[in-house]
Amino acid sequence: MTSSTDLVAVVMAGGSGTRFWPLSRAARPKQLLPFAGGRSLLAATVERLAPLVGSDRTLIVTNATVAEAVRADLPDLPGDAILAEPVGRDTAPCIGWVAWRLAQTHPDAVMVVLPADHVIPDGAALCRALTDAAAIARSTGGLVTLGLAPTRPETGYGYLELGDEAIVATAHTARRVRRFVEKPDQAHAVAYLAAGNYRWNSGMFAWTVAAIVAAIRRHLPELAAGLDELALLTSHVGEAAALAEVYPRLHRTSIDFGVMEHAAEVWAVPVGFAWSDVGSWLGLEEVLGDAGSDVRIGDVLALDSCRSILVSDGPLLAAVGVEDLVVVATADAVLVLPKSQSQRVREIVERLRAEGRTGLL
Amino acid sequence: MTSSTDLVAVVMAGGSGTRFWPLSRAARPKQLLPFAGGRSLLAATVERLAPLVGSDRTLIVTNATVAEAVRADLPDLPGDAILAEPVGRDTAPCIGWVAWRLAQTHPDAVMVVLPADHVIPDGAALCRALTDAAAIARSTGGLVTLGLAPTRPETGYGYLELGDEAIVATAHTARRVRRFVEKPDQAHAVAYLAAGNYRWNSGMFAWTVAAIVAAIRRHLPELAAGLDELALLTSHVGEAAALAEVYPRLHRTSIDFGVMEHAAEVWAVPVGFAWSDVGSWLGLEEVLGDAGSDVRIGDVLALDSCRSILVSDGPLLAAVGVEDLVVVATADAVLVLPKSQSQRVREIVERLRAEGRTGLL
Repeated sequence: MTSSTDLVAVVMAGGSGTRFWPLSRAARPKQLLPFAGGRSLLAATVERLAPLVGSDRTLIVTNATVAEAVRADLPDLPGDAILAEPVGRDTAPCIGWVAWRLAQTHPDAVMVVLPADHVIPDGAALCRALTDAAAIARSTGGLVTLGLAPTRPETGYGYLELGDEAIVATAHTARRVRRFVEKPDQAHAVAYLAAGNYRWNSGMFAWTVAAIVAAIRRHLPELAAGLDELALLTSHVGEAAALAEVYPRLHRTSIDFGVMEHAAEVWAVPVGFAWSDVGSWLGLEEVLGDAGSDVRIGDVLALDSCRSILVSDGPLLAAVGVEDLVVVATADAVLVLPKSQSQRVREIVERLRAEGRTGLL
Repeated sequence: MTSSTDLVAVVMAGGSGTRFWPLSRAARPKQLLPFAGGRSLLAATVERLAPLVGSDRTLIVTNATVAEAVRADLPDLPGDAILAEPVGRDTAPCIGWVAWRLAQTHPDAVMVVLPADHVIPDGAALCRALTDAAAIARSTGGLVTLGLAPTRPETGYGYLELGDEAIVATAHTARRVRRFVEKPDQAHAVAYLAAGNYRWNSGMFAWTVAAIVAAIRRHLPELAAGLDELALLTSHVGEAAALAEVYPRLHRTSIDFGVMEHAAEVWAVPVGFAWSDVGSWLGLEEVLGDAGSDVRIGDVLALDSCRSILVSDGPLLAAVGVEDLVVVATADAVLVLPKSQSQRVREIVERLRAEGRTGLL
């Protein structure tokens, strides 16, 4: 059984993106948006983990562009808890960097790794799942992932196919992962949902430091060599200079594609709690909305509106009689579109980029 | 025949209002909004009159709150061309004040009086009508008003019923006004439209200085006494001090209700040019929109939108796939509502007033 003192929580907060434009910007990605009852998704993620690990065992990995904003968002965390990549290189270098560091400071720890930008209302359920995942990571030496119960034939996520082999932990029965499945087409997604032994790949993991270091050495030897070089150079010139020198050269790849899909022993802890990765303005409604009513965030004065997503980050947003509309107001940009076309925010962002209006991005 | 050197143009620019909130504010009423191809309605009004009168014979009457903004909007006008009421007292005191002033400086002039906030695309047609109106004012000594050909059974305007007596001027045949009609109900409006001898009361006038002074003395003797007092006090303490002392005590009334409806001899010059008083966001569409396309003002990036009114006064307004919507974006307030409910901007303004958010009004 894992005791919580063995745990280190690693929150990956390096994401950027434009799906929440104009609220999200280069300097203020999704994880910093106030989508968790006034707090940011990141702050809510850290708070959810508090019953599991203290702030002295919580690490945030972000990037240089937003590191200051992340620090401001998490004033209770010690300054050295926030690690900033000089450039983003996807999840494998990010996780590898932290694992190599922990191998020196906490070689016997179990890492639990979570994205900063998910909504999980039931934090206690998450903590129970992570506790069991950590215990299985410890007892098996394998890599453990949380497998979300699919609620719809979603084509936007990867899936885990579960095998028959099982391990019973305190509150969950983990299943051996038979294979990782890339984002499927609609027909396959429907089949996976019906089959019963498929789970959404959550991007939430648990493993011992030793296990992930070994897996990276085995499946991503070039990355491992880069991380060795980073550690060596750090001992000579300090971490900042070493990062600036080595990190940009690390190969960009995800932990799923680079390691998990090839690893010998992967376990999934099936979980059923409500979850969203808040992938778009519509995703926000899914986690925050009540049927028929609006999602309202910020200074919103709405009369007779319904099923709308009304968000302000400063200006008063006044709406009358709007239905099924997304309206997002900031001081320098306003977005209006029907919910049914909410994906088209990308076209706006592309146009702005093409027109060189980078100040708005 | 009136020569143009006899003319003085008086533009009434004292209005305030909330129908264009959040673009219109206490310090920036409708006449200063950029609804005339990037220029303000006021600037466009002054420009339309340029073929008729020089800037040395153009007077703007506004109020103290917006006088500075009016000056900034009309940089080519001499500073003493802009007269500021200390408080608004409707059109009769405003016109009376200017008439009493002109009685001293231009006693033989014909005044043409126009609101600052109308849209009249065909400025030449307006000038021809005002030239004829001035000639009739000179030749008859009566009060002359422009009578707009009604295009719909509008219940929001007053009407003029025309009598049979006629005077032929250069380009128009003026008709004696039989009576003024207050805003009618729908049935009467339909009847007036069908009758053929009714015109919309435009609020655009021509009269000799002597005629309007005499009419005010006759029909509004209290106002005349106040204006006499103002003139006398001005000669002792200067106009600013005299205005502050006397003007707030002047009785609030309109020139239509106080003078025109009672005057012995009123002539109407019937005009058929396109005209709008831009009474609401919808009114803007009437004068600026093409069928099926949007009205777009300011920094607007719209994809696949139609029949919408998209206005920005600063922020980028990005819209995708919106239909029949009004969206108005400013740095501190954004309004969104369906065109069919555009009158309800008042409810928003009332709520803000009730909540004491006067900074937004």
